[in-house]
Amino acid sequence: MKIAVLGTGMVGRAIAAKLVALGHDVVVGTRDVDATLARTEPDAMGNPPYAEWQKDNAQAPLVPLADAGAHGELIVNATSGQGSQAALEGAGAPNLAGKVILDIANPLDYSQGMPPTLSVSNTDSLAEQLQAAFPDARIVKALNTMNAYVMVDPARLTGNHNVFVAGDDAAAKETVKDLLRTFGWTDEAIVDLGGIRAARGMEMFLPLWLSLFGTLGTGDFNIGIVRA
Amino acid sequence: MKIAVLGTGMVGRAIAAKLVALGHDVVVGTRDVDATLARTEPDAMGNPPYAEWQKDNAQAPLVPLADAGAHGELIVNATSGQGSQAALEGAGAPNLAGKVILDIANPLDYSQGMPPTLSVSNTDSLAEQLQAAFPDARIVKALNTMNAYVMVDPARLTGNHNVFVAGDDAAAKETVKDLLRTFGWTDEAIVDLGGIRAARGMEMFLPLWLSLFGTLGTGDFNIGIVRA
Repeated sequence: MKIAVLGTGMVGRAIAAKLVALGHDVVVGTRDVDATLARTEPDAMGNPPYAEWQKDNAQAPLVPLADAGAHGELIVNATSGQGSQAALEGAGAPNLAGKVILDIANPLDYSQGMPPTLSVSNTDSLAEQLQAAFPDARIVKALNTMNAYVMVDPARLTGNHNVFVAGDDAAAKETVKDLLRTFGWTDEAIVDLGGIRAARGMEMFLPLWLSLFGTLGTGDFNIGIVRA
Repeated sequence: MKIAVLGTGMVGRAIAAKLVALGHDVVVGTRDVDATLARTEPDAMGNPPYAEWQKDNAQAPLVPLADAGAHGELIVNATSGQGSQAALEGAGAPNLAGKVILDIANPLDYSQGMPPTLSVSNTDSLAEQLQAAFPDARIVKALNTMNAYVMVDPARLTGNHNVFVAGDDAAAKETVKDLLRTFGWTDEAIVDLGGIRAARGMEMFLPLWLSLFGTLGTGDFNIGIVRA
C-alpha cells in the first residue's frame, strides 16, 4: 500500500522502517525537507540526526507534507501532538478526505517542564480535535500507549500485552487492525475500545506511562489486561 | 491495627470486610450514620443497602466521621472523589495529623453524564489536593486503578498484574505496602511510582479503565506491566 508517515522522530522512523520491511511504498513527510536533512546533531530526545537514519532507509524518501498527503492511501500521524494539526494541514485537507489516518500522536506539553502535561485531556482529546478539524478524514487512534520499538515488534516483550484502537469509522478501524496484525499484534492483543471518544483514555494513560518509564528505567514495556 | 474506613460504597465495604478478616479493629465512617442505615434501596451503583451489608459485618461498626478519625491509626479514604475533602474534614484535621491516609478515591465527575470525566486532572490530582489540604497527614495513593474485588483479592485474576503506590512520605508508603502484602499483593506486583505527584497518572488512568470496563463487560480485570 502507498503509505505516508508524517513525523521524523523515533516513532515516525520506527513505523516507516517497519512499513518498508513489510513491502509498502512509503514516504516520510516533514515540514521542511532541507532543514530536516541538514541537522547534524541528535534531536531533543537523543535520536541521531535524520540524515543518518535516511542513509539506512533510502526506500522511505523524505518529502514535503503536501507530497506525503498526495502519496498516502493511508496516513500515519507520528508527529508531536503539538504539531499534529499543522502537519495534517500541511498534508492538505483534500488529500486526507476519505483516507484512514492512523493517529499515534500524544498531546504532550513540555512547556511546564518535566514530566510533560497534556495540552488537551479529560473533556476532549487530540484525536477528537483532529477528527473535528478534518471531518472527511477517518481518524483511528492506536499505538500511542507504548514506545516505538514495542509498536512495531510486540513479540519483543515476554507476555500478553495489548494495543488499543478507537475511532468512529468501523472500516477504517479494520484497516488499522489489519496493519497491526502485520506488525505482529494478535487478534487477542488488539482491543477495540469503540468510538473516537475513547482516545481520551488512551491519551490520558500517558502520565502513568511516563511514571512507569521513570520507575522501570526503560520504555521497553507495555501493559496487558489480566482477567479472572 | 485500629483502622478507619471512610466511605460506605462498594470499595469501603470490600476494604472494611478484608481488614476485619485480617484481624484489624475496624470502624466505617460516614457523615450521617442514621441516614446511611435507614436506606432500604440499592445505591446508584446497584449495591445493596448498607444496613444489609452491616448485618453480615457487625465487627465493622458504622460511626460518625469524627469518631472514625479518632479511632483510626490508619485511615482509608474510600469515599467518592467529590466527597473526599469533606469526609476528611469531617474526620477532623487534628485526628489526621501524622497518620497514614490510604487514598483510594477517584475524582470522577458524573455531572456531565456518562462516562464520567475527572474533576481534577493533568496539572493536579485529588491526592495532591488532599495532601495540600491536610499537610500533617501522610497521604498515600494506591488501589484506585482497579475494582474493589481485585483490590482485596488480587489472586482472583489469573496472571501477573500490578498495584501502584505514590506518596511523599516513604515510611507511610511502607506501611501501605505492608498492608497490600496482607491483601495478597506480592512484592513484584507492588510498583512504587514515587512522590504524590504520580497520583496524577494513577487517577488519569480511570478513563481508560472505564473504556475497558465497557469493552470487556466486566470490572473484574486489572493491568499488568509486561517487560522485555
